[in-house]
Amino acid sequence: MIPTPTRMRREIEEIPAVVERIVAAPDVRAVAAEIASVRPRWIAIAARGTSDHAAVYAEYLIETHLGIPTGLAKPSVTTIYGASVDWSGGLVLAISQSGRSPDVVSVVTAARDAGALTVAITNDRSSPLALAAAHTLDCLAGPELAVPATKTYVAELAVLAALVDAVRPGSELADGLAGLPAALHSAIERTDTWLADDGAATVADLAAADRALLVSRGYNLPTALELALKLKETCGLFAEAYSTADFAHGPLVLARSGIPVLAIRPDGEMGRLVDETVDAVRGRGGRVAVIGGREAASVPGALAIGDPLPEALTPLVFIVPGQLVVEATARSMGISPDAPDGLGKVTLTR
Amino acid sequence: MIPTPTRMRREIEEIPAVVERIVAAPDVRAVAAEIASVRPRWIAIAARGTSDHAAVYAEYLIETHLGIPTGLAKPSVTTIYGASVDWSGGLVLAISQSGRSPDVVSVVTAARDAGALTVAITNDRSSPLALAAAHTLDCLAGPELAVPATKTYVAELAVLAALVDAVRPGSELADGLAGLPAALHSAIERTDTWLADDGAATVADLAAADRALLVSRGYNLPTALELALKLKETCGLFAEAYSTADFAHGPLVLARSGIPVLAIRPDGEMGRLVDETVDAVRGRGGRVAVIGGREAASVPGALAIGDPLPEALTPLVFIVPGQLVVEATARSMGISPDAPDGLGKVTLTR
Repeated sequence: MIPTPTRMRREIEEIPAVVERIVAAPDVRAVAAEIASVRPRWIAIAARGTSDHAAVYAEYLIETHLGIPTGLAKPSVTTIYGASVDWSGGLVLAISQSGRSPDVVSVVTAARDAGALTVAITNDRSSPLALAAAHTLDCLAGPELAVPATKTYVAELAVLAALVDAVRPGSELADGLAGLPAALHSAIERTDTWLADDGAATVADLAAADRALLVSRGYNLPTALELALKLKETCGLFAEAYSTADFAHGPLVLARSGIPVLAIRPDGEMGRLVDETVDAVRGRGGRVAVIGGREAASVPGALAIGDPLPEALTPLVFIVPGQLVVEATARSMGISPDAPDGLGKVTLTR
Repeated sequence: MIPTPTRMRREIEEIPAVVERIVAAPDVRAVAAEIASVRPRWIAIAARGTSDHAAVYAEYLIETHLGIPTGLAKPSVTTIYGASVDWSGGLVLAISQSGRSPDVVSVVTAARDAGALTVAITNDRSSPLALAAAHTLDCLAGPELAVPATKTYVAELAVLAALVDAVRPGSELADGLAGLPAALHSAIERTDTWLADDGAATVADLAAADRALLVSRGYNLPTALELALKLKETCGLFAEAYSTADFAHGPLVLARSGIPVLAIRPDGEMGRLVDETVDAVRGRGGRVAVIGGREAASVPGALAIGDPLPEALTPLVFIVPGQLVVEATARSMGISPDAPDGLGKVTLTR
């Protein structure tokens, strides 16, 4: 028997308080003022693993809200190929829970030397990454003990949203950020209710499967990517995430009966595009569980998170039911989600 | 019985001649001169599906050889979220075999309107994409009839390499480009010999599996990504590609006995990093087939492509044995690789 509540569960339950701290902290203002003053022409984000999914979120958030072209750094260009990239005039943003990934630190050091503005988002203010960057934003998440990152992932997203809101105040983000802690509390409650009802079938499907597909698009593509990684590292499932835009380029062939599909469905136009993929999978005999916003209430069996939020902030909320599904699936498989087989908490990549 | 040679096979056999045409064409010079004159501060690449893997290649090639920060465009920022991105001062490079993906065309139109230099790489000079971009580079691959893209993928990589070489002449790329057609001929021959010997076990493993893992890093990460997509769309395998840098972040758990792993191993330092992952998988009882350069000759059962090439050009050669493995695996499964179930040649994404 796995003792409950697991650490993973307890850390998920801390998420509303962590986000409340970040929203209340004035930490982002000085960095936001610097970004507004420097006006970077482009932004590159360096991250690995779970933080790489926070980086994908940042790409959508920054391009949409700040209009600055944004991409992901490729550390091996610096660490293996030794290239001199002209980072001047840009912003290099590094995201790492531990702040200890050597290749991410190398990119920040190279970018700072070349004249880029450098900002680190990390849960360890005394980490090598924090020391390497000109500015550091703290995730304020407290120690994370379970191997699967949960609260630090949401903390990274919250810091990003607070930062973007501070760079360009007056958007939909401000009100949404204030409402986030309540929305997160409510999401945990609704998920627990759902897991005791329709959601139990989703957990049973995943626990019985050796594969799974996760789909979404836009702001919630990182939600799908992060849940796929969590299912892999925690449950040992062969789980893969796709943008619905790429799904028809081949992966649709995989969506056969027996492979559970989990779709993350924001409300609005993006939700209707996700529906097209859901319908295509069902047309091939595949089963799809849907986690989404209020509109998802019309989908049979779906988990509809009711609180209205701008789509840009839904990734902070929609990930939580997914994390709880992963936690429940692991337990149902007899796996301790706190320390799944063969994984360390920190991965050191050159 | 599937009639042989398949169209896919015949199109792979055309690759050396296609690359020879591209290397000989002066097409890239005018565009290269424009790029050298504009000196873009950053480059964003828009692509979908197979061409998205050419885009990942372009990211490594451009950052390493031109030192310009490069990232992937996220079309939904423009097409769904309607954001105004400040594309001025940059270069937006679109890659599409058909030139007909509506969202890629939308990004190019928005970027051109906003003052970016725009270049399309496409196999159809009269496509909407070619009309939308300020400059077009032709893949010169001729009609591609098999659903899985093969020669057009290598053509896209060759156009990118020829373009980068023309923007900054005098690098290792020039000699390497001249030697490519011969290296490609030799790669096809060596692969056929290998497939009749040690490679037969790799094909048998893949044909018997429902999952597969592809690994590499850096320049050949797109080779792994592209082979995973080909195994999905052509053979219906649940195949996933990873950077060896991310592999220890969870996917290593998947590498159990019975899931075949295919590693793409360039020579040199990057090859030794790939070896670490190969060893970790073997330590867990997993089987790994290796496709690589000359150094791979010391790996039992590996396919070693002998011609010396700069690592930056190996993705054009290493993809070919992979494509031939996919073609042979499909036939061995009784699937026609030319028209696998449920896929169209062109995917139109909004």
